[in-house]
Amino acid sequence: MKSKYGFILIKPQLGENIGASARSLKNFGFTKLILVSPKHGWPNHKAKITSVGAYDLIKKTKIYENTQDAVSQFDIIFSLSARKRDINKKHISMNEFKKMVSKKKLNYGFMFGPEASGLSNEDLSYSNYVIKIPTSKKLKSLNLSHSLTIICYEIFKIINTNKFNKQSKKIKISSKKNVSAVVDHLKKLLEKKSFFNPAEKKQAMIENINNLFYRLEPNDKELRILASIISTLAKNK
Amino acid sequence: MKSKYGFILIKPQLGENIGASARSLKNFGFTKLILVSPKHGWPNHKAKITSVGAYDLIKKTKIYENTQDAVSQFDIIFSLSARKRDINKKHISMNEFKKMVSKKKLNYGFMFGPEASGLSNEDLSYSNYVIKIPTSKKLKSLNLSHSLTIICYEIFKIINTNKFNKQSKKIKISSKKNVSAVVDHLKKLLEKKSFFNPAEKKQAMIENINNLFYRLEPNDKELRILASIISTLAKNK
Repeated sequence: MKSKYGFILIKPQLGENIGASARSLKNFGFTKLILVSPKHGWPNHKAKITSVGAYDLIKKTKIYENTQDAVSQFDIIFSLSARKRDINKKHISMNEFKKMVSKKKLNYGFMFGPEASGLSNEDLSYSNYVIKIPTSKKLKSLNLSHSLTIICYEIFKIINTNKFNKQSKKIKISSKKNVSAVVDHLKKLLEKKSFFNPAEKKQAMIENINNLFYRLEPNDKELRILASIISTLAKNK
Repeated sequence: MKSKYGFILIKPQLGENIGASARSLKNFGFTKLILVSPKHGWPNHKAKITSVGAYDLIKKTKIYENTQDAVSQFDIIFSLSARKRDINKKHISMNEFKKMVSKKKLNYGFMFGPEASGLSNEDLSYSNYVIKIPTSKKLKSLNLSHSLTIICYEIFKIINTNKFNKQSKKIKISSKKNVSAVVDHLKKLLEKKSFFNPAEKKQAMIENINNLFYRLEPNDKELRILASIISTLAKNK
């Protein structure tokens, strides 16, 4: 059995935030968007147009009239809150939340409040834990779809650790043999133009040239361009 | 010297994304928003209204006509791209990017392309590294302000590690002495109503009751409510 994740927006006010939330869900591999009493009813045109490639999630969004019904399919509910709430719920850090969802295979619901006011105390009473995403003190209130995006992103990271570690394959770069041919050509041209002067500094100058060109990692096309630049510069015109 | 971070939006099409980006910057303690040729000119009314508490950042946003001028104040430029690009730039993972900015104090610029098309090859040519935020294969294209939010959030996390680890102080919970008084009262009432029957099971039942109530962590108000529930239930009516 795998964990399941659902995202519950309580009384969202702006269709744009619902659409943008659906898009983030899909970006990070989730499908379950739940709304409780969206302010402007449902379906919502703005939610549709801002969902971009995630209209399938908008179409199957479940609508509930109250929070109690919306949370009933989950085992654990996390409430997102921008401020410390004076209720007896355990406030947990981001790292604690990540540890929890990593450990146990359960159905986790994440509850987000309306844009202007956040979750009510009644909404919070249905949750197990409260998460406050840390922010600068200068502006603590995150946009609804941004805070949902951060939660989706963090869970995706737990499930797909490897995608965050591995370096993408590099574009094929030219062999050192090809690079050397160009660099040798450059050195010959410079020699002809009496660049290596005085003679006792020649070795140091050669090393500088090597350092510059051997770290370039050009691909074949870039190397041809470089060779052509060098030839052009060297022309006696 | 501290690192400085700037966020460069190339030819952004929607004022809403500019405003939402400014808000995220401020949420995570950044101030430097830079635009290159915004599609609908500048100032932009929608950018203003969606910036919410970050209008100060919108007011001091710098506008440039081309990418080259916009990047000139930075030491290292990271380009964000939703797809693997066929250019000879090092594509780095999120963890590599985080290691880089943790190690060296430099001026880092992050470059984001227009909503519909992403960065052009010319824009990319001004950058040192390309970052692709990992996503589900089903929808790779992140909303502009969402991908900026994730970058801001990750840098904020590096600078403020402690805020992600420490558990917030809990709401003051009742002392075990107060909890015990209620639990003892409950046990007496149950005894009176012949709950502990048969006698040889009493010890196990007591342990179950203890397990249930001693893990509750109620505050004083909740404990009073609990005591009153127990008394009400016990009334012979």
